Amino acid sequence: MYKLYSMQLSGNSYKVRLALALLDTHYEAIEVDILRGESRTPEFLAKNPSGQVPLLEVEEGRYLAESNAILWYVAGGTPLAPESVIDRAEALQWMFFEQHALEPNIGAAYFWLSLVKGGRDLQTHALEDWMERGYAALQVMENHLKTAHFFAADQLTVADIALYGYTHVADRCDFDLVTFPAIRAWLRRVEQVPGFVPMDWRPEAELDDAPGIAAGAE
Amino acid sequence: MYKLYSMQLSGNSYKVRLALALLDTHYEAIEVDILRGESRTPEFLAKNPSGQVPLLEVEEGRYLAESNAILWYVAGGTPLAPESVIDRAEALQWMFFEQHALEPNIGAAYFWLSLVKGGRDLQTHALEDWMERGYAALQVMENHLKTAHFFAADQLTVADIALYGYTHVADRCDFDLVTFPAIRAWLRRVEQVPGFVPMDWRPEAELDDAPGIAAGAE
Repeated sequence: MYKLYSMQLSGNSYKVRLALALLDTHYEAIEVDILRGESRTPEFLAKNPSGQVPLLEVEEGRYLAESNAILWYVAGGTPLAPESVIDRAEALQWMFFEQHALEPNIGAAYFWLSLVKGGRDLQTHALEDWMERGYAALQVMENHLKTAHFFAADQLTVADIALYGYTHVADRCDFDLVTFPAIRAWLRRVEQVPGFVPMDWRPEAELDDAPGIAAGAE
Repeated sequence: MYKLYSMQLSGNSYKVRLALALLDTHYEAIEVDILRGESRTPEFLAKNPSGQVPLLEVEEGRYLAESNAILWYVAGGTPLAPESVIDRAEALQWMFFEQHALEPNIGAAYFWLSLVKGGRDLQTHALEDWMERGYAALQVMENHLKTAHFFAADQLTVADIALYGYTHVADRCDFDLVTFPAIRAWLRRVEQVPGFVPMDWRPEAELDDAPGIAAGAE
């Protein structure tokens, strides 16, 4: 069984949890609170020198980092990971786009505006750039979705999961999707896929391990 | 035959040209000077809404963007593109790392310090961040290369080509590789692979189409 080092409210971590849920793959989730420096401890850095979550232990002592690479790994051999050379390349195109055009802008805005207390004041100087570039990325996605239901291979793939991660929290960090109807329709389309789980969903295994939390949820 | 929209001095474009040379794949190279706005014309934006090179025309009117996605496409079915799920995921891990940890820092420093006239003065405020994050990325690479000859699958793959693109120009934009002996040895290793071409190499087809340039080179 996979061990996934993940932070519940991280969009990058959520991508992997969403894929595992869609694939009905069981795993052990280990919460790493990056806001408390838990991804910068010597123990964690020994597992991932980049100090980031998500991180997947694929076998005893062997770790895979980078959310989008983990998506390809856990989805390998399933319909979520297209295998034809052109479909795979088009899915990858959108996943690299996600990492340099969407995540550094909407992901950064979400982190500082939604997760970090007082983050807005700390990042005033950067916010304008994030908004401008984030909207530009959303426009590229909107244009694609005007004539396509999904991003690659005419079906839900790891590319949609990667892009869903931060697009679905855009409205929690000042982005307004009102002028992006095709994106909003695509978000609903992803949410209707059997097995879909929202970001705040936790695997049962973890709840079993933490009866206090489960009880507290009542 | 592929048509590749590329800028000679762009590290992202060079990655694709290097892969095509290693694979001995012929293609038509079309120079797009982003410094003169040639990637922002309506004609180019119709091909790639992100307005970036490299861009590969894979068939009449069908375009693939994102250097690292193009690498997987052109290398599909060759030893440069590992097919086992774990080797592929580890190659992808390094390629996503390249796009968010190396390219936005060393790539940005190279662009502004080496290509744009007066760029250093324009980017004084950003340079310190680029240097700090760029060196952190180099350290992650150095640590990996202390015990490995290449980045994934124990052989040269698209991951090495992706990382070579900007690492090999680090010394043109203030980075000093003297404390990174494993990286320097790896750079030489890549350069010794049969078929290797340096960044300023141009395919013969392009020289044939531009006799003035070929003659001028004499």
